[in-house]
Amino acid sequence: MKIATVHETRPHERRVALVPGQVSRLTEAGLQVAVEPDAGRAAGFTDNDYRDAGAEITEDALAGAGAVLSVQPLTARQVRALAPHAITVSFLPATQELELVAALRDAGATSLAMELVPRISRAQPMDALSSQSFVAGYRAALLAAERLPRFLPLSMTASGTIPPARVLVLGAGVAGLQAIATARRLGAVVRAYDVRAASADEVRSLGADFIELELPALEGSGGYAREMTDERSRLQRELLAPHVADADVLITTASVPGRTAPLLVTAEMVAGMRHGSVVVDLAAEGGGNVEGVKPGEEVTIGSATVIGGQNVPSQLPGQASQLYSANVVNLLLLLRSGDYLVPDFEDEIVAGCCVTHGGEVRHGPTKDLLAAGPR
Amino acid sequence: MKIATVHETRPHERRVALVPGQVSRLTEAGLQVAVEPDAGRAAGFTDNDYRDAGAEITEDALAGAGAVLSVQPLTARQVRALAPHAITVSFLPATQELELVAALRDAGATSLAMELVPRISRAQPMDALSSQSFVAGYRAALLAAERLPRFLPLSMTASGTIPPARVLVLGAGVAGLQAIATARRLGAVVRAYDVRAASADEVRSLGADFIELELPALEGSGGYAREMTDERSRLQRELLAPHVADADVLITTASVPGRTAPLLVTAEMVAGMRHGSVVVDLAAEGGGNVEGVKPGEEVTIGSATVIGGQNVPSQLPGQASQLYSANVVNLLLLLRSGDYLVPDFEDEIVAGCCVTHGGEVRHGPTKDLLAAGPR
Repeated sequence: MKIATVHETRPHERRVALVPGQVSRLTEAGLQVAVEPDAGRAAGFTDNDYRDAGAEITEDALAGAGAVLSVQPLTARQVRALAPHAITVSFLPATQELELVAALRDAGATSLAMELVPRISRAQPMDALSSQSFVAGYRAALLAAERLPRFLPLSMTASGTIPPARVLVLGAGVAGLQAIATARRLGAVVRAYDVRAASADEVRSLGADFIELELPALEGSGGYAREMTDERSRLQRELLAPHVADADVLITTASVPGRTAPLLVTAEMVAGMRHGSVVVDLAAEGGGNVEGVKPGEEVTIGSATVIGGQNVPSQLPGQASQLYSANVVNLLLLLRSGDYLVPDFEDEIVAGCCVTHGGEVRHGPTKDLLAAGPR
Repeated sequence: MKIATVHETRPHERRVALVPGQVSRLTEAGLQVAVEPDAGRAAGFTDNDYRDAGAEITEDALAGAGAVLSVQPLTARQVRALAPHAITVSFLPATQELELVAALRDAGATSLAMELVPRISRAQPMDALSSQSFVAGYRAALLAAERLPRFLPLSMTASGTIPPARVLVLGAGVAGLQAIATARRLGAVVRAYDVRAASADEVRSLGADFIELELPALEGSGGYAREMTDERSRLQRELLAPHVADADVLITTASVPGRTAPLLVTAEMVAGMRHGSVVVDLAAEGGGNVEGVKPGEEVTIGSATVIGGQNVPSQLPGQASQLYSANVVNLLLLLRSGDYLVPDFEDEIVAGCCVTHGGEVRHGPTKDLLAAGPR
């Protein structure tokens, strides 16, 4: 059975779904590995790296492949070229890509969406949302530190003492915690807030202060925060305002998968920040936690620089790919049955992340949207 | 007696010689403080900040001032506008600015050059070369970390382990040590080299490895490394080559004041670095430690990004100004005699940093160059 890795097609995507270091895990399982030319180039892997690892480099990787690996969803054209019953593994925001889901369904493909892997302990090694958020959180803190026109650490010199910078992190999921850890490494004084009160201990364990607002806490399911009412949101912004005004760096990471990101910080709040402050909004692509943010751009609000994240994991493409590739291979090998890959829907991981199979859409919300017809 | 702070005139200069926080030290000594409009703007200080601190904001700050503070040397026009017997305090690379030194001499000014402050314990609070190198070293490490397309710290996740990045620092003076400390904070594995074997303990105390080459050590005077012969330089490059090839990040900081920076790393050595490697050369303005570097630019050599430093302290203008300002005020107050400032040439600090006084050039090497006539 052939496992194909395709060259990514979407703009700003520098990652690759399979890195050379993971090839042997597939070949040792009796699978053949085919990779499109230059698929790993933007991530720093050459075709020869793949050949040395035991993969075939070919323009025809997709043809006849039993499984196709990618980071971003395949194109409609690639879906039409799939072999019958092929398995696709990629990020696949199913409810937002209805046409593509219909095409995968009609092609008879078994499509697995990495963002639908359940957040249970056994699935942690397949959790690509977490692995890529880990990259994004590190990157957000470094970007902010580099743009900030002042020191992060306390510095005591013969010429005087420089106080540490103040960093505020909103959203203490994987990305937020990694941003906190990185800012702490650099010696900043860090505060963090999350609507999930349960994250307070994690925040404190990293040496940061947890901000408690006079709001009843919300607990979501599956580790995600639930959406809030408008009134609660307004009150939350009001209570966060003095913390934002006090920060040299603001990093926001609050996103609810498949939904518009919550507006945590208004432009007015940003305008109240100190001269030279820096804001990094990792939720920019989902609408932004910060009013006025633009994905992939730096805008100035008041005297603050506001950076909108855009495929932030692709900024560390080699290592983001390494982690993603491990996630994908772990999921793929879960399907292994002898020399073949066979989805077992008794397994809650497989059942949870499967979008289409055998000509049907299995993901409930997507199926409902498709049944409701064109929006 | 009026102390004037002028608006800087040279390109890329964002610092200011006096920050609002240091104004009261002068006024409390019975001195009047006048500052040109917008002098602190690029560093993040408003005219109102200066007014609130007790300074006068005026276009005529220079007129009749007993002392004039700046970061970069005054312009020829500013020198002509000096009051008789005025004291100027600034960086002043005297041997390279002979025309300006002649103008200062002919104006009867007492010009003090911050880079000539002797490197003795008592002068540490006035050591602007060190304070600004401290800023540059931090900044070099952060720039490199931000440009590097990979993690600096060791990262252990459910999706696999990412090894720490390898950072090599050449030159372990103030800037090099601060670059080492910052890269170590970020979790990188750091190695460093300096021709002064005495720096090994400082390097090791920061958790970095000191590279010992099979070269007889050189000790300079005043804390600076001496220049080396061509043959020694060649051998040194040869022995450093494998360390450069092994590094993800190379930071070079070796400069000999007033002389061309030593070439430590050839373009060939850089071309041997790994995909995505980053080089920051803080000596770029002095000719560069790295072959092919350009001040203020990013060039690609092989697959490495080579960043040439250009007035790097100005990238953190507020805090670089804060440290510089403390240095300048400390030096100025050393001259205090009642309500006036009077240079006392019995003091080795004053004698050491004075370039012109009473119509004479007092700095030996500069005097010799001027006597030798136009080059």
